[in-house]
Amino acid sequence: MGLLVVGSVAFDSVETPFGTVEDVLGGSATYFSTSASYFTDVNLVAVVGEDFPEKHINFLKMRRINLDGLERTGGRTFRWQGKYGYDLNEAQTLKTELNVFEHFSPKLPEHYRDAEVVFLANIDPDLQRDVLTQTKNPKIVAADTMNFWIESKRDSLIETLKHVDILLINDSEARQLTDEPNLVKAARKINSYGPKTLLIKQGEYGVTMFNSHSIFIAPAYPLENVFDPTGAGDTFAGGFVGYLANTMDFSDIALRRAAIMGSVMASFNVEDFSLNKIRDLDYKEIESRFREFKKLSHFEDI
Amino acid sequence: MGLLVVGSVAFDSVETPFGTVEDVLGGSATYFSTSASYFTDVNLVAVVGEDFPEKHINFLKMRRINLDGLERTGGRTFRWQGKYGYDLNEAQTLKTELNVFEHFSPKLPEHYRDAEVVFLANIDPDLQRDVLTQTKNPKIVAADTMNFWIESKRDSLIETLKHVDILLINDSEARQLTDEPNLVKAARKINSYGPKTLLIKQGEYGVTMFNSHSIFIAPAYPLENVFDPTGAGDTFAGGFVGYLANTMDFSDIALRRAAIMGSVMASFNVEDFSLNKIRDLDYKEIESRFREFKKLSHFEDI
Repeated sequence: MGLLVVGSVAFDSVETPFGTVEDVLGGSATYFSTSASYFTDVNLVAVVGEDFPEKHINFLKMRRINLDGLERTGGRTFRWQGKYGYDLNEAQTLKTELNVFEHFSPKLPEHYRDAEVVFLANIDPDLQRDVLTQTKNPKIVAADTMNFWIESKRDSLIETLKHVDILLINDSEARQLTDEPNLVKAARKINSYGPKTLLIKQGEYGVTMFNSHSIFIAPAYPLENVFDPTGAGDTFAGGFVGYLANTMDFSDIALRRAAIMGSVMASFNVEDFSLNKIRDLDYKEIESRFREFKKLSHFEDI
Repeated sequence: MGLLVVGSVAFDSVETPFGTVEDVLGGSATYFSTSASYFTDVNLVAVVGEDFPEKHINFLKMRRINLDGLERTGGRTFRWQGKYGYDLNEAQTLKTELNVFEHFSPKLPEHYRDAEVVFLANIDPDLQRDVLTQTKNPKIVAADTMNFWIESKRDSLIETLKHVDILLINDSEARQLTDEPNLVKAARKINSYGPKTLLIKQGEYGVTMFNSHSIFIAPAYPLENVFDPTGAGDTFAGGFVGYLANTMDFSDIALRRAAIMGSVMASFNVEDFSLNKIRDLDYKEIESRFREFKKLSHFEDI
C-alpha cells in the first residue's frame, strides 16, 4: 500500500543572486516526499549520518512521512554545495560530499514491500533495480536519473528503464540519453526503452509529457520572485506521483492533472530556500494555484 | 482600412544541420505579410534592389498582398547569411549586407495611411516613428525590435514604445531592455513604457503574453522535423496581428486566440526552408493545427 520513495536526504549549501543558505535540509527524497505528503502516505528509504538533527526528523514526521526506512549510520550526512546565476535554470555544483550516501544500500522494511507506487529518485541505476527486486508487485514505477549515470552507467540505466513506467528527466538528459537533438524523436526513443510515459522537465519553461498517443505541455508558473530552484524537479515529481498515488487513476486525463499538480508544487518550492515554502501549505493554496494554471493556458476554440 | 506592415524584404542564405539554401526569399515584412495574408488584406512597405526577381513579386501578389508600397531602387537587395546548430533556438549571423535597405526611408502610399492596424517590423526605431507620423489614426500599433536597437538607439526605442500597443520581442531582449532578469518584472516594466500587451517569444518553448491583468502561455508545437527557424518570429507576428486585424476584437479572449494563431503559423513555417511551407496552406490545415494546440495544453479542473 502507499507510495515508496528511495533517494537522498542531504544538507545543501546554496548561493543565488538573492541570498545564501548553509547546510539546510535538502535531498531528492526529502523534496519528493514533502511534496507528495500533501496527497498520499509516503514511505521513505534513505540514509543519514549521525549529524542529522532531530528537528528535521520531527519535520518529516509532522508531514506524516513514514521514516521506518530512514537508515541512520555513523559518519556525516550527504552534502551538496551549489550556485545559481541570474539564469536560475542551471546549478553550478561547487562541491559534493557523498559521505554516508557513498555506500548507501537501500533496504526496504517488510511493510514497505507491497507499495503500489514506487518512485526511484536519482540514484545509481543498479540500486534502482535492487529496490525493485525488494518490492512485491508495484502497479506503477516512476524514476528520475541524471547525466552522471547516462555517461557512466548507460547499460545499467537502460536495463532499469525496462522496468520503469514513468520517467522524469530534463531536456538535455533526454537528448544525451538518446543522442537525438529533436525532443519529439528523443521522447519516442525513450518510450521504446520501456517508460510508457515520459516527462521532460524544462525548468522555467515547464514540462512536456509524452504518452504513446498524446503530448501534453504544462507551463511553469510565471513568478515575480524565484529564490532558489534547488529541488524543483523532485518537488514536481512529488506532486505528480503523489497525486497519481492518491487517485490510482492513470488515464490521460489523470496524468495531465497530475502534471499540473507537480507544476503547482514546484512553483511554490522555488519561492523560498530549502523546503521553507512547502513545509506547511494549506491545501486551499494548492487548489487555488491549480486554478491559476488553468487560467494561464486556457483559450477558446475558434 | 486593412493591415499595414513596414519591414524588410531580403535574400537569406541559411545553413542548418538539415541542409543549406542560398539567396532564398526572406525578410521580416515578407514572412509577416505572407502569414497575415491568410487572415486579412495586407499593405506592404519595403524596399528591394534591381536584382529582385519577378517570381517573388508574383508570389506576393498571388497571396493578395498589396505591393504599392514596395519601392524598387538601383542596387542590390538586402542579404542575410546565418547558421544554426542542433540547438535551433539561436542563429549565428555570418554576414549582413544592408545594400538598398541601408538608406530605406519608408513612404506610405496615400491609400495606406488610413490603416487600422499597423505592424512595425524590426527596423530603426526612428523610422518606426516616422511611419506612424504618416498614418492617420490606427486603432492598434504592434511592433518588434532587436538587441541591436536596444544597445544603439535605446532612447529612440523608448520614445517609439510610447506609441506602441503591442510589443513582440524575445526573452533576452526583454531582459536587456529593462535590465531585469526576472521575466514577470521585466514585462511589467515594459507595460509601463507604453505597450499594454507584451508578447515574449521563447522559440521552441512558445510565447508568454502579458496584459495588464492577465498572463497567457502559448506552447510551441512539438515537431519531429524542425528544418529552419528563420522567420518564425515574424510568421508568429503575422498570424497574431493578422488574426486581430481580421476580427478587430482586442479582448483578452481574442488576444489569446490570436497568440495561438501566431503559434500555428510559426509551427508550419519552421518545417521547411524560406517560406516554402506557408506559401500555399489550406485554411483547413490551419484550423486543424489550432485544434492540435488545444489538445496540447488542455487539462480538466480538479
